[in-house]
Amino acid sequence: MKTATRRYHLDIKKGCISPIHKVFAIDEFGRRQELSVVSEVPLTLKVDGFELVKLMTIGNQPRALALGYLHNQGFIEKIEEIASIAVDWENETVNVVTRNRAAMRRHRTKLSTVTSGCGQGTLFDQSLDALYRQRFPKVSMRQSIIHALLREINRYNRIYRQAGSVHGCGLCQGSKLLMFVEDIGRHNAADAISGRMWLDGIPGKDKILYTTGRLTSEIVLKAARMRIPVLLSRSGITYLALEIARDLGLTVIGRAKGRNHLIYNGAENIIFDAIEKFTRN
Amino acid sequence: MKTATRRYHLDIKKGCISPIHKVFAIDEFGRRQELSVVSEVPLTLKVDGFELVKLMTIGNQPRALALGYLHNQGFIEKIEEIASIAVDWENETVNVVTRNRAAMRRHRTKLSTVTSGCGQGTLFDQSLDALYRQRFPKVSMRQSIIHALLREINRYNRIYRQAGSVHGCGLCQGSKLLMFVEDIGRHNAADAISGRMWLDGIPGKDKILYTTGRLTSEIVLKAARMRIPVLLSRSGITYLALEIARDLGLTVIGRAKGRNHLIYNGAENIIFDAIEKFTRN
Repeated sequence: MKTATRRYHLDIKKGCISPIHKVFAIDEFGRRQELSVVSEVPLTLKVDGFELVKLMTIGNQPRALALGYLHNQGFIEKIEEIASIAVDWENETVNVVTRNRAAMRRHRTKLSTVTSGCGQGTLFDQSLDALYRQRFPKVSMRQSIIHALLREINRYNRIYRQAGSVHGCGLCQGSKLLMFVEDIGRHNAADAISGRMWLDGIPGKDKILYTTGRLTSEIVLKAARMRIPVLLSRSGITYLALEIARDLGLTVIGRAKGRNHLIYNGAENIIFDAIEKFTRN
Repeated sequence: MKTATRRYHLDIKKGCISPIHKVFAIDEFGRRQELSVVSEVPLTLKVDGFELVKLMTIGNQPRALALGYLHNQGFIEKIEEIASIAVDWENETVNVVTRNRAAMRRHRTKLSTVTSGCGQGTLFDQSLDALYRQRFPKVSMRQSIIHALLREINRYNRIYRQAGSVHGCGLCQGSKLLMFVEDIGRHNAADAISGRMWLDGIPGKDKILYTTGRLTSEIVLKAARMRIPVLLSRSGITYLALEIARDLGLTVIGRAKGRNHLIYNGAENIIFDAIEKFTRN
């Protein structure tokens, strides 16, 4: 792997990896075509010198990703517990130092395996009890806001439009998109959002989490951990994700494209203020 | 989580979970609609009583998934090392017992963390050296075979057509689809294929691995571990996956839909026997 590693290191700029590479491929007519592909970096997250996880990431938000991962997986509760965070691209590592090393050590001994990801390995039932103890407050959301957000998001998926092969995740307040992150996995994108919210002290309770990816149990649990009561996705839902959303009282809207969407849970929180408009069109 | 667990247990049939559930959602017009969603089960893989990983799966191929995971991650080299495999749906666990417990124990002490998945956690560089020591033989593949395979695969994505939200993976020989597996993650689907190949002693060297998912480093590494020299995907590729494919000499074709495809690596192995036909249409 050393060869590959050396090659993409040439593209390091301003402390982050260039997310897009130009390559050549041969099309169905045998013609050579130049195209853009996304980078993928095996970024090792070390906490107090201990290797916690290797995150396959596009590499443009390493600090936010590392922090969000630690927060969303329930490893570290308060941002104040973190003494420093440093990215070391030579060794493809993010080094996090905590103030209270004992806390992380407790986690490590509790976990025989630290696993996570998209259908393979998960912290599914780690500290799930804590999430189940709190319910989300009732929200109210206009359908016209959903439509406005979907239009807005279409302007921000820059990497996807150039190279494809990424998922996007957005933090929204009303019809305003506060931040938008693209990464190889939808989990990484959600974690990077979480990391930035955590760093900047942004509360989740009045926000909407948008994702291009599917609504699996892990995405619902991440939203819950970020205390965001509304999840909006371009894709569908799994049965387990739906059950968890029902249990926690999360409003979940999927298959959201243009003016179409399906409310999987929390329809009582949606104000259908846009029906009349588009039935007339 | 106990509530959710109990609910989908009602659907256990013949030793596997029903992959599809009927639910109701509210559409953009406020109308109640019945639709199908896929199941998602947190299946714990235990080896010799030790919890190795939790796999979020659709649940219809638990044994093949568990075996393929162990094989693709390089935990167990030979199928003869496995003494028994049993699925325990009550505890959402697959129990694998090995003949040589020492081998797995060696792995466990080597790994500080066992991680895997889609952009979050990976066994990326575990035993990568072994893969890099062997190169793939030169293959020859007609473009017309690619077209025929893509048509064939469209008939097999049963769960996707009913409920969406799954990835599919197929093992192909010439224009014949030998098996097709759908699961929540593309990694699981590839692992289940690997598990069935391993059980039935099917060699990879004359096969093609098809996936609906993106070609990330992990999918390329899985194909390499299954000794399959050709990868075909409906989606795009990451730069790291392309570099690994080049290093190993894998033929990789992406963005394959209908008559379109891009050959990312190994174009010299493709016979363009279909160009004339479709330029005339």
